[in-house]
Amino acid sequence: MRVGISKLLYKDKALFLAYDQGLEHGPTDFNAQNADPEFIFKLAFEGRFSAVACGPGVAEKYYEGVYRDVPLICKVNGKTSMAKINPISRQICSVDRAIKMGASAVGYTIYDGSPNEPTMFHEFGKVVEQAHDYGLPVVVWMYPRGPNIKELDNEVLAYSARIALELGADIVKLKFNDDIENLKWMVRCAGKTKIVISGGERVLPEQFLTEAQKVMGAGVLGMAVGRNVWQSDKPFSVAQALKSIVYEGKSALEAAQLVK
Amino acid sequence: MRVGISKLLYKDKALFLAYDQGLEHGPTDFNAQNADPEFIFKLAFEGRFSAVACGPGVAEKYYEGVYRDVPLICKVNGKTSMAKINPISRQICSVDRAIKMGASAVGYTIYDGSPNEPTMFHEFGKVVEQAHDYGLPVVVWMYPRGPNIKELDNEVLAYSARIALELGADIVKLKFNDDIENLKWMVRCAGKTKIVISGGERVLPEQFLTEAQKVMGAGVLGMAVGRNVWQSDKPFSVAQALKSIVYEGKSALEAAQLVK
Amino acid sequence: MRVGISKLLYKDKALFLAYDQGLEHGPTDFNAQNADPEFIFKLAFEGRFSAVACGPGVAEKYYEGVYRDVPLICKVNGKTSMAKINPISRQICSVDRAIKMGASAVGYTIYDGSPNEPTMFHEFGKVVEQAHDYGLPVVVWMYPRGPNIKELDNEVLAYSARIALELGADIVKLKFNDDIENLKWMVRCAGKTKIVISGGERVLPEQFLTEAQKVMGAGVLGMAVGRNVWQSDKPFSVAQALKSIVYEGKSALEAAQLVK
Amino acid sequence: MRVGISKLLYKDKALFLAYDQGLEHGPTDFNAQNADPEFIFKLAFEGRFSAVACGPGVAEKYYEGVYRDVPLICKVNGKTSMAKINPISRQICSVDRAIKMGASAVGYTIYDGSPNEPTMFHEFGKVVEQAHDYGLPVVVWMYPRGPNIKELDNEVLAYSARIALELGADIVKLKFNDDIENLKWMVRCAGKTKIVISGGERVLPEQFLTEAQKVMGAGVLGMAVGRNVWQSDKPFSVAQALKSIVYEGKSALEAAQLVK
Amino acid sequence: MRVGISKLLYKDKALFLAYDQGLEHGPTDFNAQNADPEFIFKLAFEGRFSAVACGPGVAEKYYEGVYRDVPLICKVNGKTSMAKINPISRQICSVDRAIKMGASAVGYTIYDGSPNEPTMFHEFGKVVEQAHDYGLPVVVWMYPRGPNIKELDNEVLAYSARIALELGADIVKLKFNDDIENLKWMVRCAGKTKIVISGGERVLPEQFLTEAQKVMGAGVLGMAVGRNVWQSDKPFSVAQALKSIVYEGKSALEAAQLVK
Repeated sequence: MRVGISKLLYKDKALFLAYDQGLEHGPTDFNAQNADPEFIFKLAFEGRFSAVACGPGVAEKYYEGVYRDVPLICKVNGKTSMAKINPISRQICSVDRAIKMGASAVGYTIYDGSPNEPTMFHEFGKVVEQAHDYGLPVVVWMYPRGPNIKELDNEVLAYSARIALELGADIVKLKFNDDIENLKWMVRCAGKTKIVISGGERVLPEQFLTEAQKVMGAGVLGMAVGRNVWQSDKPFSVAQALKSIVYEGKSALEAAQLVK
Repeated sequence: MRVGISKLLYKDKALFLAYDQGLEHGPTDFNAQNADPEFIFKLAFEGRFSAVACGPGVAEKYYEGVYRDVPLICKVNGKTSMAKINPISRQICSVDRAIKMGASAVGYTIYDGSPNEPTMFHEFGKVVEQAHDYGLPVVVWMYPRGPNIKELDNEVLAYSARIALELGADIVKLKFNDDIENLKWMVRCAGKTKIVISGGERVLPEQFLTEAQKVMGAGVLGMAVGRNVWQSDKPFSVAQALKSIVYEGKSALEAAQLVK
Repeated sequence: MRVGISKLLYKDKALFLAYDQGLEHGPTDFNAQNADPEFIFKLAFEGRFSAVACGPGVAEKYYEGVYRDVPLICKVNGKTSMAKINPISRQICSVDRAIKMGASAVGYTIYDGSPNEPTMFHEFGKVVEQAHDYGLPVVVWMYPRGPNIKELDNEVLAYSARIALELGADIVKLKFNDDIENLKWMVRCAGKTKIVISGGERVLPEQFLTEAQKVMGAGVLGMAVGRNVWQSDKPFSVAQALKSIVYEGKSALEAAQLVK
Repeated sequence: MRVGISKLLYKDKALFLAYDQGLEHGPTDFNAQNADPEFIFKLAFEGRFSAVACGPGVAEKYYEGVYRDVPLICKVNGKTSMAKINPISRQICSVDRAIKMGASAVGYTIYDGSPNEPTMFHEFGKVVEQAHDYGLPVVVWMYPRGPNIKELDNEVLAYSARIALELGADIVKLKFNDDIENLKWMVRCAGKTKIVISGGERVLPEQFLTEAQKVMGAGVLGMAVGRNVWQSDKPFSVAQALKSIVYEGKSALEAAQLVK
Repeated sequence: MRVGISKLLYKDKALFLAYDQGLEHGPTDFNAQNADPEFIFKLAFEGRFSAVACGPGVAEKYYEGVYRDVPLICKVNGKTSMAKINPISRQICSVDRAIKMGASAVGYTIYDGSPNEPTMFHEFGKVVEQAHDYGLPVVVWMYPRGPNIKELDNEVLAYSARIALELGADIVKLKFNDDIENLKWMVRCAGKTKIVISGGERVLPEQFLTEAQKVMGAGVLGMAVGRNVWQSDKPFSVAQALKSIVYEGKSALEAAQLVK
């Protein structure tokens, strides 16, 4: 019954290139180069990412040809950052539509702790069932958010990890609060649901690679990175460096050499 | 037409191991051992529990092999304790999906008295019909909750017992407020819908076993326990003790001998 | 096209035994005897009621054997009195499920005048269509309720009677405010939708029987009684007395002799 | 693709007898005679109305026999005047059910300008599609209503006329504010969606007939009248008078002779 | 998988005649001539527009005969300007119905930034999937709207352009804030989703044509115009002028000669 995630892995590790920021944050994250989805797919392909994640529109119009060698995680819900309302992200793409565009997995964001949590839990339950019925694994972006929610508290992060397991996700994308012991606890709480750590906002490459080494050492499945790669001046080099850490277990120091 | 509950019983009594706390409370309830669903299923199996209750994700990833000897009650709705909203728990798993994971019964939580009661009543009605159409019994977690609701009042508890019968549940999980006469009244109000008493927060083993003896004496079907077993230092021994009370009618004093 | 109601009548009159109080009011209405649905079905059978009305759970677990000689009206929506919200009663049982349990008719409560009226009107429309498609008549409990609604005003009661006709109910259960001329007007306003008068809270037998004689004289189809019968010390005798008025047109004085 | 409305016309004009007041206003509009739907159907038949409009319950129980010679417009949504909420009228009858009762057209009320306008627009869209798929024309009661809406403003009325065309109605029922030039503009704005003018509250027969002459002169399709006919002491005579204006183009003065 | 938009183009450019103002603004935008949809379709046909956009009712009743040579974009959602609520436009026409009326594409308005954004995103996702399954392209009217939203800010406009791509629209209708560099950035952000610029309120012909020349020079697909054409005294001449700019790349100065 269990749906395999191996198609999303390389050397049993996950290195996802995330590209849903155009919808979630708007093009302020972009420059002329990375605003172009084709560049991103090229980067995913040449950078040997184990999967690429984006929304339905980008996938339908750009995910083609050789880029299809990189497995696609279609984000099936989404929202903008414009509306100032209690966090909610509704489904914008059916599982069927994701399959039609060639997706190997579906992604869904849950704002756990939001007053709208019940709506997302309910919708997510259906997405998981439909995806698993087709043999597609499900990646959940688990982002604690809402009044009085402290997103980076140890307990909140561990709770988020556990929710992913409880609801049936196969992989959960979480933030890292720099507490390595808590991350190990999160790994335990998520159990057979595997954790990928979110890259987050752009930081210095050394800092980013150091974080990558840390989290891989804590036993996570991998990383889901976006801005730290495609906002970089040397995206292909950063990708190489990241690969050496995630896939080959190199140190951040060694990897940094690759960012010439 | 009536759906049998015998598959959830042993010696005509119910001893359910409840493990939905990871979603409902978060992993603060857990330690390294009991955070692992495999440990829980092992405990359910070796402890000869008459059924085990957990959410869809845990069941899909861990309910396999020999553990399938223990009948599964899949909790098909759920919520976290993070969002501070009027109590509501939406469906996160279809009855079909529960069957696919091998469930012998479905579980559903109703917060009776909540301003969201109508939504849960409506959803529960469909769950009962679908489950019964497949021959699956339904266990309802009936938790009075909401503004001005006194959860442990005699009247509120008896009302909750009755709602379970009225809505068509086969088994209802209720709290015990230590009033044995009221529990007997609850048993009458629930009629052919059988009551299992919730174990609740961890207390001293002696206290817990004494409560078990009391409630079994009042004519309930059994108990649904979690934290008092798997948070214990000696979970297997506590399970033995509990079994001797629930299945064999031993006294709390006799049973306590088994918690070496 | 019109669905017949004759199966719910005896000697062309309706005497319904109502037993939905366990859900609507809670077991405070009950004692050890009448908390047991079996007692109620026995009373309905031996008391020669023309139909018995209860919720899905009670029917599924108790409506069997010889009791099936009494036609069942399954109440397909319901709520508790615990939640302090604008009156709303959502569907808790499908028409299909009602049929599976052997129902001869479905019942539905509308709180006309409630801010939630539109939801109930919409849901009721579907219930009527489904029931009529199966040839099942529909009984509506029409209870004006909500901010600024005076439940027993003449105009409000007549409006409620008319709504039942307009929405397509076959029988409407209404309260009687002791104004016999207004009741006659209500009968006219309801037209081919027939009125049964609600028994309401328990009063002295003489008072209850006098009311029965009054309303029958105003041309209603019959009565839907509950607490005044099964809360009585002599429920079978009260039933006999009531039958003599409703079915045989006896006076309250004559009937009172039967309550020995 | 366009659905014909000829079945609702006589001599290419519309004279509808409206009888949804029992639900919309309550029986305060009625007396013993006109509370009886049979009287209304008789009046529609003998008065040679081109169609009669009523709700599903009235139609199902009274629209039969010779009365079927008068085409039926089934009002598929409705509300009472009891609940003090933002105007909303939800669907209470499916198009399928309307067809089963012999309807030749469906009617739907939209409160344009209400905060609930989106819900009614959405529901109406489905009603139009279903009705047209069966070849049934759609009559919309377009009533501007809501905070800050001035129901009889010229602009508001012209807007309402246009909405009916935009949404796909075949006929729109509108109020007349006594500005004949604006009514001509409304006729233009509605285009191929034809206007019938609402009779409204009862006024003196002379005043009513004068209005009828005025509006017919402005190029509307006809009138939808209720209270001014069936609340009259001489309903059949008023109907005769009205017919002479609507169908034969007589003057109000001539017509008034018929109200002996 | 990608749906072609060529059927909506002429010489690879888009010149859409927009005519949804009757619903969105009301007939205050109209005069006796342009209130008539037939005039608009004639203008679209003779003016050689590459497509015409209107709501379902107008299309069903007027889109016929030779006018069918002009491809139709059916606007499948809509609202009035009467209700003062948070911007929301619900679906009023199914994709199936649009196809039945001969539509070559569907149009949908999203108010991004509105508190109701989630509802529109969710609904739009289904519209896109259904339309694409039939091979119909989707045109989205992307109008940032809501509390604190500055509709013409550079960032807001670029965000809106990007949302259209992310959600899967084929063409997006946007406003132009007179910043040509930002428009070029919008074109990049929208990628393979092509931009048409909204004509907006009526301005002087010279100003309008100058704007047309500007936006075409920035690389957009074309323009969607309404009031600046059909409110003009010389609508056919303005159309000629516009065509020379959009299809043939003439300057505004040359084009202005055509508006005799």
